[in-house]
This record gives sequence, C-alpha cells and structure tokens, in this order.
Amino acid sequence: MDNCIFCMIANGQIPSTTVYEDDDFKAVFDIAPANPGHVLIIPKKHAGDITELPQETAAKVLPLAARIGKAQMEALGADGFNTVINTGEAAGQSVMHFHTHIIPRYKGEAPMVANWIQKSYKDGEAEAIAAKLREKL
Amino acid sequence: MDNCIFCMIANGQIPSTTVYEDDDFKAVFDIAPANPGHVLIIPKKHAGDITELPQETAAKVLPLAARIGKAQMEALGADGFNTVINTGEAAGQSVMHFHTHIIPRYKGEAPMVANWIQKSYKDGEAEAIAAKLREKL
Repeated sequence: MDNCIFCMIANGQIPSTTVYEDDDFKAVFDIAPANPGHVLIIPKKHAGDITELPQETAAKVLPLAARIGKAQMEALGADGFNTVINTGEAAGQSVMHFHTHIIPRYKGEAPMVANWIQKSYKDGEAEAIAAKLREKL
Repeated sequence: MDNCIFCMIANGQIPSTTVYEDDDFKAVFDIAPANPGHVLIIPKKHAGDITELPQETAAKVLPLAARIGKAQMEALGADGFNTVINTGEAAGQSVMHFHTHIIPRYKGEAPMVANWIQKSYKDGEAEAIAAKLREKL
C-alpha cells in the first residue's frame, strides 16, 4: 500500500535490521525496542490488522514467533518472551499494517504488562457477557 | 497433564465461562480479567508454552483470536483488542499450559503495555545482535 512504512520495510524500500525473511514475512528489529533484540514479524502483503489478515497468512505467524522467541532465548540468553499483537489504536497499534511483537524478557525485570488491574465479575455478569460474545462467534 | 488447571478447564473437569469450543481449543473467560470479556484460548492437549505447541495447533490460534477479537468489538463495543502470549515466568506466564489472551480495549484507557521504555541501539549494536539471532534461526 502506498505510504505504508511497513510495506516499504517488508519490501526492502526502507532499510531494516532483518533477522528472517521468506515469501510471506520479513522479521526485523523494532527501532525503539522494549529490550534489545525486540523483533517485529511483518507480512509482505498489506493487511491493516489481524482482522484483515488472510487466514493462511495468520496460520504461519505463531510457528514463526515460536522460532524467533526460541532464538532470543538461545542467542541472547533471554529467560522468556512476550508475543503481542495490538489491534486498533485503542489497543496501542501505532502502525496500521499488521505486525507481531516478539520481546525477549529477563528474570527480575518489572512486568511489561501493567494496567492489568484484575477485575472481577458480579453474579451472572460473566455469563451475560459470554452470551453476547457467543452470538457473534 | 495431571494437576494442570488449564487441562482441567479445557476438558471440562473444572467449570468455566465458555465462549467457544472445538476439537482443539476451549475459549473461556479469564477469572481475573483485565477488562470484562477478556478471553483465554486454551488448547485441549497439554503444551507448556508456545515452544512446545505442535505447529498444526499453533497455526489455528491466530485465526481464532481474530474471530474472538472481532466478536468483542461487535458484541461488547470494544474499540480494539490485545492478543498476548507470555512464554516463561520472566515474561509473566503464570499457568504453565499454553494460552492466548484476547483483551477488549476501549478508547481513552491507559496503555496496557507499560515498562515499554523505548530503548535505542548504539552504532553497530543492532546488527551484532541480529547476527546472533540469525545463527539460531
């Protein structure tokens, strides 16, 4: 898509630090990493977000994420990794071309996911909300 | 796996608020949700984390996550959603049975992902780290 920075990165028009590439994806470093070695998996074909991603492309993302996360543990000594996909500005998506973050994590670091204030459901509330969701699934 | 709470939930030995179920997965409400309608996709067959998940199972997760996130937007009026997979205690994984969080998000909420202090690379540092990763990929 014209003027999409991740299309330009995925197709090599903008240089990037690339760790992996195949016919469908380019995996590059986030230029403002949460930790060194923070990778973005970017599909070459434009999709605005996960809801626009073709299923056959979506199917390939997590196997690749697992491979990259394992490499972060083996090569960088990370103790774990977060795989994060933000859909929509309200969820923190800042580039409107689908991408998956893989962030190496180390013991003793502060939790990455804050504002995860654990809420609770009143009696019957969970089931009422679930019923609405099931209608759409 | 014996004594795995998510095996017991996925296989119906422990009750849960279920929004979706098929041969491979059960999708249930997190009992301590980040927001009401926060769903966990749990595979029925035990895998400790994404690195242990069979590729054919991993392939099915994101298409299902997209479906559930769209339902959160349509049914609950969410403006977006986060899809989060934590691998390892250092990354915040608290139950050692693979699961994918799908969290509905609303405009005006504080960012969920904190501690995302944007770091930067010194000259040559990114390429050196990328070279280590490529060796393992």
